[in-house]
Amino acid sequence: MKKGDINPFGFDGEIFRFLDQTKLPLEEVYVETGHYERIAEAIERLEVRGAPAIGVCAAYALALALKENDDEELFLRAAERLKRTRPTAVNLFWAIDKMISHYIPGAGDNFHRLKITAEEIHLHEVNNCARIAQHGSALIKSPSNVITHCNTGVLAVAGTGTALGVIKQAFTEGKIKHVYVDETRPLYQGSRLTAFELERAGIPFSVNVDSAAAVIISQGKADLVITGADRIASNGDSANKIGTFNLSVLCKQFNIPFYIAAPTTTIDRSLRAGKEIIIEERDASELRRHRGAEIFPAHYPVYNPAFDVTPAENITAIITEEGVFKYPYDFS
Amino acid sequence: MKKGDINPFGFDGEIFRFLDQTKLPLEEVYVETGHYERIAEAIERLEVRGAPAIGVCAAYALALALKENDDEELFLRAAERLKRTRPTAVNLFWAIDKMISHYIPGAGDNFHRLKITAEEIHLHEVNNCARIAQHGSALIKSPSNVITHCNTGVLAVAGTGTALGVIKQAFTEGKIKHVYVDETRPLYQGSRLTAFELERAGIPFSVNVDSAAAVIISQGKADLVITGADRIASNGDSANKIGTFNLSVLCKQFNIPFYIAAPTTTIDRSLRAGKEIIIEERDASELRRHRGAEIFPAHYPVYNPAFDVTPAENITAIITEEGVFKYPYDFS
Repeated sequence: MKKGDINPFGFDGEIFRFLDQTKLPLEEVYVETGHYERIAEAIERLEVRGAPAIGVCAAYALALALKENDDEELFLRAAERLKRTRPTAVNLFWAIDKMISHYIPGAGDNFHRLKITAEEIHLHEVNNCARIAQHGSALIKSPSNVITHCNTGVLAVAGTGTALGVIKQAFTEGKIKHVYVDETRPLYQGSRLTAFELERAGIPFSVNVDSAAAVIISQGKADLVITGADRIASNGDSANKIGTFNLSVLCKQFNIPFYIAAPTTTIDRSLRAGKEIIIEERDASELRRHRGAEIFPAHYPVYNPAFDVTPAENITAIITEEGVFKYPYDFS
Repeated sequence: MKKGDINPFGFDGEIFRFLDQTKLPLEEVYVETGHYERIAEAIERLEVRGAPAIGVCAAYALALALKENDDEELFLRAAERLKRTRPTAVNLFWAIDKMISHYIPGAGDNFHRLKITAEEIHLHEVNNCARIAQHGSALIKSPSNVITHCNTGVLAVAGTGTALGVIKQAFTEGKIKHVYVDETRPLYQGSRLTAFELERAGIPFSVNVDSAAAVIISQGKADLVITGADRIASNGDSANKIGTFNLSVLCKQFNIPFYIAAPTTTIDRSLRAGKEIIIEERDASELRRHRGAEIFPAHYPVYNPAFDVTPAENITAIITEEGVFKYPYDFS
């Protein structure tokens, strides 16, 4: 068992360095780049992923775009390019718009100023995580067995994590017995990334297929489910990795709490309800193969929504850096 | 698109020939053997699978065990060996016990007689499928969109199939618009085998991750769910591929029918309720790799129940060759 810290990405003012998450946990490969386009590609390919993390990465990418040449047109083109990488993560748009608002045409020190802005966004997420972890852990009783879905740790959020940050904090306080990790099809963020982080943190876990959660919950083996969110509407409806909605239905049916942990930057106040959230449909190849090993032929039709929307009434509480909100929600 | 019949296995009196389902749908590889041990291994490795199909294969294997040497001790040893291959499929035990009951010590013609018994078991399953398909199709309205899980077609049942037989029959009658195929982790029997059969039958389908069923059902895109069963207790509680119970909870929550289609040989009258069903836990490697491509390291702990038990009250109807049964069930 390997233990220790994980450094998913960083910018030293010259080079942006990131851990390629598509290769985890079998290989720890770091990529170094001096160009924002490579970071945009990394976001598209899910080499970096997780709603808060890609916001921070996009911010660093925009600073990098100014390094060689402080040109407003090129800067705004880079911002548009980065906005097109992933459609569901609201933090991405929030971070990019914040960077744009700090750009002063002709000021001469834009690279320096926007690098600091990106660092502030980064620090902001780190601090948010610490607060989310504290608020969330207060909800967890000892001893608890937890189910989580996808990856919401340091690999996804820049700080300690959202849902996984809560689990880590509660473990530190002696309240977590076991974590059931949904493997999270199609890209296995659970069995690859969450398992990787739990092992590093020394937290007991096991991996299961996503549909085994029904057995785990119905047999009383899990006391709660906690996940992150990619976008939260004003009424609390929350988009997150496909499979989250399913878990919330099971929690309701078997009467255990279903929590979402996310920074308030995930809340999209322009949306009244979840039905307004545009759900990214990703390529069929995600279901068709893993690391080059084919499962079925390329011509089989595939329905591959990357996210689903959990209705607010299924969510026991939304844990943010500002505190814990309970149903009914009104973030407008 | 390839169309046409599929011949998953057969015995010509000399050689048992089977289609290796672990290689489907990328390769159609037939294996020929003259020894029962190879058939036992095929059942263990899921090269042949599906509760009714492995019963038929085990029957042929027992006939084959007598071919070279009609020795009662060796015959009973072969029967014990075959019973140990899969613990959940009651049809396996039913078929083996039927073969044993037809063995007459010292009779001299045991190979010939037990070969006919195996053929009768095979024909029995084929006829059962035809009747199940007729009974089940009568429940389906036109036009219907269907979700199915795992594989319950000719690859699983020797006849046209149980749940998939119902779908094929209803399609022939013009009542099926689209089939949503759960990929069925961990072994992808849906995206590999059911998709393969649907393509051959010319039925429109798409593949989705198992946890997307919640989105499909909640959005009204599916009118019903139909699956097979591996073992049914006297009260109707039904063991089937992991993920089935989850689907039944969704059907109940969103008020659409959940059907099980299975021959009456699947009913285990020795069990009063589902909690008495022993659930096979299979190897962690099923979650860890696909065709040699690793997903996570071998030392990560895994919880891998192969089946779950759907409570009788979640099952709208159980479709058998004898007719359609509705809740509450009493098969005792």
